[in-house]
Amino acid sequence: MQPLVDKTTHPLDQALQLTPLGDDRVQGQTHPGWANMVGPYGGITAAVLLQAVMTDPRRLGEPVALTVNYPAALADGPYEVHRQPARTTRSTQHWVLRIEQDGQVVNTATLMTALRRPGWGHTEATMPAVAAADTIAPSRRMRPIAWIGNYDMRFVAGPFPDLAQARDEPDSVSLLWLRDEPPRPLDFPALAALCDVFYPRIFRRRGQPTPAGTVSFTVYFHADTSALAAVGPRHVLARAVGQHYGLGFSDQAGLVWSPDGALLASTHQMMYFKG
Amino acid sequence: MQPLVDKTTHPLDQALQLTPLGDDRVQGQTHPGWANMVGPYGGITAAVLLQAVMTDPRRLGEPVALTVNYPAALADGPYEVHRQPARTTRSTQHWVLRIEQDGQVVNTATLMTALRRPGWGHTEATMPAVAAADTIAPSRRMRPIAWIGNYDMRFVAGPFPDLAQARDEPDSVSLLWLRDEPPRPLDFPALAALCDVFYPRIFRRRGQPTPAGTVSFTVYFHADTSALAAVGPRHVLARAVGQHYGLGFSDQAGLVWSPDGALLASTHQMMYFKG
Repeated sequence: MQPLVDKTTHPLDQALQLTPLGDDRVQGQTHPGWANMVGPYGGITAAVLLQAVMTDPRRLGEPVALTVNYPAALADGPYEVHRQPARTTRSTQHWVLRIEQDGQVVNTATLMTALRRPGWGHTEATMPAVAAADTIAPSRRMRPIAWIGNYDMRFVAGPFPDLAQARDEPDSVSLLWLRDEPPRPLDFPALAALCDVFYPRIFRRRGQPTPAGTVSFTVYFHADTSALAAVGPRHVLARAVGQHYGLGFSDQAGLVWSPDGALLASTHQMMYFKG
Repeated sequence: MQPLVDKTTHPLDQALQLTPLGDDRVQGQTHPGWANMVGPYGGITAAVLLQAVMTDPRRLGEPVALTVNYPAALADGPYEVHRQPARTTRSTQHWVLRIEQDGQVVNTATLMTALRRPGWGHTEATMPAVAAADTIAPSRRMRPIAWIGNYDMRFVAGPFPDLAQARDEPDSVSLLWLRDEPPRPLDFPALAALCDVFYPRIFRRRGQPTPAGTVSFTVYFHADTSALAAVGPRHVLARAVGQHYGLGFSDQAGLVWSPDGALLASTHQMMYFKG
């Protein structure tokens, strides 16, 4: 049987290529296919930081909580990921991470990994009842931004607004089915990346173009390797909503579900905006 | 006019006493009044990390996003806070922080600060409609845990459960008015501290005692200094809910409102639990 995707050519796997530098550092390279307005898509940066730990032989367990901060935009070219296990216990490990380019810090991050053990489980959040992904037409690419082409997005609510209309919306909810394009089995870096897929909530709320960008991004992982494998290359259902906008910053809360109804991740972010 | 509180004797201000060590480090000391089951209350650790930056002359602007990780419990005694501005731009600053004790990392953290500027604002989350704080009786202290005595808590919903009953609840929502005890004007460290006030959501959901503790905690600040000053020593309204429990970890999403209806902070955390 042919592999579903060639890991040497898929745009996500290409962006996750890291070369060990022999100490706590690995070297990456920005990928033109993941370019955003300025610098790379924030989700790919989060995925690269996670990948730096996933490929570290010192890693204990699976990702639990990842926070990435975005002080500046990466310039096109090579960069270094610094990965350090700050404290390891019997079943948990806390990592301190950063990306540097030309000797300057471009991202800071922390990651907790842990041995995940089966036990009592319950999902308290309610999965939105929506039509199946294959009944909804994929979005056409709205804007000339490279990374958007790496996702198949099928909006149930809150598609990218027509910014020419400058129409206030009563809420900022977006709800969409999405998967990597081309299809690729879901894993931790892919999940981290797609948790940043929501365009800025203020675009939707105000319906007008506004400079905006993520300053801090968090993913809590509720799935383990086998739960991600069970999703495979299928679409996941993602929902995000803004909670507050003011003093130049806004926050966003999101949830990502498997097509079978398992909550895979909860995600939050704080964005700056002008206006 | 007498000051409302004596900053040398209030338990929060006592715990926030930090002694500069002449480099990027300041020294703190655990405070018996903030003890939890094992180690200090997580909220006071977050407040101390924030205070280390608030008192740093290099600081630019006001707190925007704070994430604190809890690899291990602090032992009673002195500890060192390491604070480093990783990247400073014209209007933002990203800090990397950690607490060490006996040469071991006990907490890791990141903080973003920024010059907050007035501009377009909107609160999309809805403040729960509840009775005023002064119409609700304060909770009696349920458990022999020191830090609980530092808060006046008035539950509208989801009080600390009777764990002897082992009664499942349909949801894990807690909604309460709270303020520092004794009353103290709200500031950034106080707000960070009280964002961790919610007891583990799994206690409420399952109604039985379960070892549990925060592993990662995030606060997004929506208020600036003047918005916090406008709250003064009054109660704030805090709501938290669990979203998912499984594979030994659960998450929680929370919001904190001023009594005048301003959203002061959104907060999230990931907890481990046994069971």
